[in-house]
Amino acid sequence: MATVKLIQNKDASPEVLAVFEDIRKTRGTDFINNFWRALATDPVHLKNTWHEIKSTMSGGSIDDMVKEMVYIAVSTANGCSYCIHSHTAAAKAKGMTDEQHAELMRIIGLAGKTNQLVNAMQVPVDEVFLA
Amino acid sequence: MATVKLIQNKDASPEVLAVFEDIRKTRGTDFINNFWRALATDPVHLKNTWHEIKSTMSGGSIDDMVKEMVYIAVSTANGCSYCIHSHTAAAKAKGMTDEQHAELMRIIGLAGKTNQLVNAMQVPVDEVFLA
Amino acid sequence: MATVKLIQNKDASPEVLAVFEDIRKTRGTDFINNFWRALATDPVHLKNTWHEIKSTMSGGSIDDMVKEMVYIAVSTANGCSYCIHSHTAAAKAKGMTDEQHAELMRIIGLAGKTNQLVNAMQVPVDEVFLA
Amino acid sequence: MATVKLIQNKDASPEVLAVFEDIRKTRGTDFINNFWRALATDPVHLKNTWHEIKSTMSGGSIDDMVKEMVYIAVSTANGCSYCIHSHTAAAKAKGMTDEQHAELMRIIGLAGKTNQLVNAMQVPVDEVFLA
Amino acid sequence: MATVKLIQNKDASPEVLAVFEDIRKTRGTDFINNFWRALATDPVHLKNTWHEIKSTMSGGSIDDMVKEMVYIAVSTANGCSYCIHSHTAAAKAKGMTDEQHAELMRIIGLAGKTNQLVNAMQVPVDEVFLA
Amino acid sequence: MATVKLIQNKDASPEVLAVFEDIRKTRGTDFINNFWRALATDPVHLKNTWHEIKSTMSGGSIDDMVKEMVYIAVSTANGCSYCIHSHTAAAKAKGMTDEQHAELMRIIGLAGKTNQLVNAMQVPVDEVFLA
Repeated sequence: MATVKLIQNKDASPEVLAVFEDIRKTRGTDFINNFWRALATDPVHLKNTWHEIKSTMSGGSIDDMVKEMVYIAVSTANGCSYCIHSHTAAAKAKGMTDEQHAELMRIIGLAGKTNQLVNAMQVPVDEVFLA
Repeated sequence: MATVKLIQNKDASPEVLAVFEDIRKTRGTDFINNFWRALATDPVHLKNTWHEIKSTMSGGSIDDMVKEMVYIAVSTANGCSYCIHSHTAAAKAKGMTDEQHAELMRIIGLAGKTNQLVNAMQVPVDEVFLA
Repeated sequence: MATVKLIQNKDASPEVLAVFEDIRKTRGTDFINNFWRALATDPVHLKNTWHEIKSTMSGGSIDDMVKEMVYIAVSTANGCSYCIHSHTAAAKAKGMTDEQHAELMRIIGLAGKTNQLVNAMQVPVDEVFLA
Repeated sequence: MATVKLIQNKDASPEVLAVFEDIRKTRGTDFINNFWRALATDPVHLKNTWHEIKSTMSGGSIDDMVKEMVYIAVSTANGCSYCIHSHTAAAKAKGMTDEQHAELMRIIGLAGKTNQLVNAMQVPVDEVFLA
Repeated sequence: MATVKLIQNKDASPEVLAVFEDIRKTRGTDFINNFWRALATDPVHLKNTWHEIKSTMSGGSIDDMVKEMVYIAVSTANGCSYCIHSHTAAAKAKGMTDEQHAELMRIIGLAGKTNQLVNAMQVPVDEVFLA
Repeated sequence: MATVKLIQNKDASPEVLAVFEDIRKTRGTDFINNFWRALATDPVHLKNTWHEIKSTMSGGSIDDMVKEMVYIAVSTANGCSYCIHSHTAAAKAKGMTDEQHAELMRIIGLAGKTNQLVNAMQVPVDEVFLA
């Protein structure tokens, strides 16, 4: 259960409905996932966050599928189950193959391991990395 | 200061020196960074971890530069300063442009934000993501 | 499922029952939530932790509702689902309005974002903050 | 050392200078801290993030000093040293007394403790919190 | 639901079945838990990770039960519910008593508290610890 | 730099000095490390936290050195540099050998890896672990 209401279409203000409409149009789907319905309890926050997602996660100099992989990586390290599910779905929708997914798991696992090792051994940053 | 000794070449066992040599050859550089010198206090761990890094971070179905970006993402969320420095250097060495670096920052920042929002609002995972 | 037993009233020692009684009296409710039933597997730990909660979360120079907001913030960043649920309920019981809750979400989300950005960019602390 | 350049005034574009000017004016100080100089490597990100900070951290239904306390709490749990320093300074500037700071430490420490306990014991969320 | 398939015996390749067989033999049980079935989507990763677990978690200079306690501690701080469940079960199977479990909870809770306090107060490392 | 004052002996109240004295006596050393000097800004918090550390970290059913290892593990996953330094020193003082330290690194690194893998793959908890 969420700690906030999940706003259904019939309870949504025109401002919220407009964002939902843009999400649908941008993604080419009728589906509005729960994150947006939860955020809709604060229409301004919903609008700004959607704008940030929309402008960040598509276009630019990094491939859209790669962006989703990075998102999965951060969400994993932050332990956000919902985010892992939704961005894994997004990465697959943008073409991530099973082989790439498996490789992503290897990198994320390895990074988790060396992150802990470096912290536990308190390895000092090499001068060359600070130049 | 590290909580373990940083093994210098003159104090390294032949087993450690062999790993160092392979790192140098693989990377085309004489430089051995502190992470490996710290791990060298446990030669078997050094050897296995180097083997894991070597086989994971190059080749396969994900671009080498992208792998470094994912590594930066995990290391940031885990708060590993050393790892952020070393893998940012590696990503740049593998061709990450300033524009791509800036975009990576946007994605990592945004993911950090929505991870917290989803956790704080305890958004339930949509059925469709579980299919 | 918990990794420890949840102690029910009929299985509780007099020492545990005394803490439960004080929780009920302090909170003006008959309800003992699962955290206390789990901790009750170690009566001394139960007693000390309850004492710490009781003396920390009420009175003093910070408003009780604000204390719950801070608790939500820490629990979110630490990814403790139970804690987010229970302290959101407590904050609401102490008067947190929907508007304040929405604003809290904005701050927590924003802090999560800039925390990641600062870590990813390894921003050095300004001299003035160290004075 | 940051992983990005810290943009000094003389190297800043007009767009960046305009944000710096608004920061100075809003805060009533000439000082621009390193976070903004690092973000200035991406002027659009700088502008949007400053706008988000400015609109979130002042006004509304939560006291400005309380907002900074929440920020300290999130930053502590996320282990962002820079953020802890800068927002502790901000909280003090907005009136946080030593007594309140000490109390904040107690809450943050206690939350960190119970977060771990709840996770380690995997306490199931009470039905009443899900209603 | 997992974001990868859980490989059942009938769908497993000979390479995967060989690892499953070694897990069963090493542990003296017929049961293969979901972690291995998920990893089996990448047989090389499965094999290497099992080898790492097998060689790390048994034998050597630290008692096997103590190793599981350390694993619980890391998994708690990283918020990995599955890992807490499986390694608590393993620790109990290796002899951890209820009293030891309760004491482990105290240490993990206390460490979580002082970790936050140290971070929030940004306590500088004493010279003597760096020697 | 700490965000609170580090209380020196000459500035300490009798209440603080009494705790310092007990720390010295208990540990058989004249040295008071910075954590206690920082906490001394809140004498009641100092006293309670010292009491908690003293009663938790010595005696009972888990070996004192093992307790320090668990503390290192939690502190690593939480990214508390100070805590890693101080508890590694404590573990060594209580007899942790270099071999045991190296093995601890392996376990912590491995746990960090599998924690991430489990989160990234969202492995469902096996029924048997919930029994």
